[in-house]
Amino acid sequence: MDEFPSIVGRFSCEVYWGDCDPAGIIFYPTYFRWMDAATWAFMASVGYSPKRMREEYLSMPLINAECKFVAPAQHGDRCEVRSRIGRFGGASFIVAHEMARADGTRLAHGSETRVWARYVDGPGTPIKSQPIPDEVKALFRAK
Amino acid sequence: MDEFPSIVGRFSCEVYWGDCDPAGIIFYPTYFRWMDAATWAFMASVGYSPKRMREEYLSMPLINAECKFVAPAQHGDRCEVRSRIGRFGGASFIVAHEMARADGTRLAHGSETRVWARYVDGPGTPIKSQPIPDEVKALFRAK
Amino acid sequence: MDEFPSIVGRFSCEVYWGDCDPAGIIFYPTYFRWMDAATWAFMASVGYSPKRMREEYLSMPLINAECKFVAPAQHGDRCEVRSRIGRFGGASFIVAHEMARADGTRLAHGSETRVWARYVDGPGTPIKSQPIPDEVKALFRAK
Amino acid sequence: MDEFPSIVGRFSCEVYWGDCDPAGIIFYPTYFRWMDAATWAFMASVGYSPKRMREEYLSMPLINAECKFVAPAQHGDRCEVRSRIGRFGGASFIVAHEMARADGTRLAHGSETRVWARYVDGPGTPIKSQPIPDEVKALFRAK
Repeated sequence: MDEFPSIVGRFSCEVYWGDCDPAGIIFYPTYFRWMDAATWAFMASVGYSPKRMREEYLSMPLINAECKFVAPAQHGDRCEVRSRIGRFGGASFIVAHEMARADGTRLAHGSETRVWARYVDGPGTPIKSQPIPDEVKALFRAK
Repeated sequence: MDEFPSIVGRFSCEVYWGDCDPAGIIFYPTYFRWMDAATWAFMASVGYSPKRMREEYLSMPLINAECKFVAPAQHGDRCEVRSRIGRFGGASFIVAHEMARADGTRLAHGSETRVWARYVDGPGTPIKSQPIPDEVKALFRAK
Repeated sequence: MDEFPSIVGRFSCEVYWGDCDPAGIIFYPTYFRWMDAATWAFMASVGYSPKRMREEYLSMPLINAECKFVAPAQHGDRCEVRSRIGRFGGASFIVAHEMARADGTRLAHGSETRVWARYVDGPGTPIKSQPIPDEVKALFRAK
Repeated sequence: MDEFPSIVGRFSCEVYWGDCDPAGIIFYPTYFRWMDAATWAFMASVGYSPKRMREEYLSMPLINAECKFVAPAQHGDRCEVRSRIGRFGGASFIVAHEMARADGTRLAHGSETRVWARYVDGPGTPIKSQPIPDEVKALFRAK
């Protein structure tokens, strides 16, 4: 998963009451919500803010997502998602995410496979995959 | 709330594991998710399906929402939302919702105040309120 | 709503991609998720952390929740919920919330009516309302 | 994934307005919410209802979840999740899910790896994995 020498994105989050289930631990789709938000934050960190993505008709639909759950998180846990690019393909890319609690405990790790895509006629209209520009790839390259 | 002689919409739902919190009961924003889905289903029941709403650039943004919680619902409870139009204004309308368990127990009741609106240039573009057409109002009138 | 001279809690949040709907703006139950999280954070700010609440078998079930939506929020908006105690009753209390964007734009304002309650036999077991201790009320009193 | 000759569970669902994102299609964590609900419904279909699971202190925490997204779903799509047991281990098991639209279009397919577990002292208390009883395995065996 580490073919691309990627910078690391950091996304802070917290386990809220409503993110937990009757077992008293995090409801697992929450991790996928975090991964999605972490990817958007990672994009923003290199200059592709939600606003810019909207204005340039860009989106990042998913092909695949997976997550391994290592330790249960509880209400009130402050967490961080550390994201990096696992691989850049022609039009697709993999974002690898590590979820950890503030005390360092590793909670979960997963990845998303996404496509670089453009709305043909603006937000809400059909999306078409695009070759990922080299300038975009360069923004994520670790020096 | 019952000024308008409204037909009644019925929306079936169920309390899922992930809708519940560590107290073992429904997480309250779930009721608002249900009310939203119930309103869309109510519209669909009179001919305004999601597909038609999209094609005609229609939406129903909210001004206000409120809910009273009467009895706690638990994982596995099969429920129904019964919706009716509380009032039609010029461009706004109130949808009143009753949430009950299949055994008849009343769980919650609330209302949404919404605006009849149109996307100026299609989904995702700015929305502008519209006078509610008389034909639309007539669709909800109880005979 | 301002009978009780309350301190103000501050809860930071952000509108994520998944919090928005096909209209490109925040899906309204998100505000209720924020209000819930803001109330828990407000409690934590005066010493009642999620951990302590769990250990002392305390919870805060709801009687009522309402929200007025003033301006639409979009993906990427950084926001803050400012919370204060609107009123303390015997076993119930009202938390009033103001939601604003980082640029100061007021987005929504609402309130929750909650009950101070205890799990009879620990988390997940039935909850019983309790008189709100004067020490708890004092923690929220503005000097 | 098809080592165990499993019966098939069927779970009906629908794409609601609030399940969709600004691209106008389903927000992907929704599929994981569906898979979770489908697994609970699958258990209920063989006699392990949410109520019974609670009363017997049983839960099914996750080790892993993954999903492949094949075609985008839209607001209003009626869907079905078809679930089967992919494999039974000693204390863990895999549930494989197929998500399809009512018109037959395959939307996504994924799987969850779960542990058969018991709360040591009732809901909300720590959970410990348990050998899956042969009687439970037998309930899912296709004749």
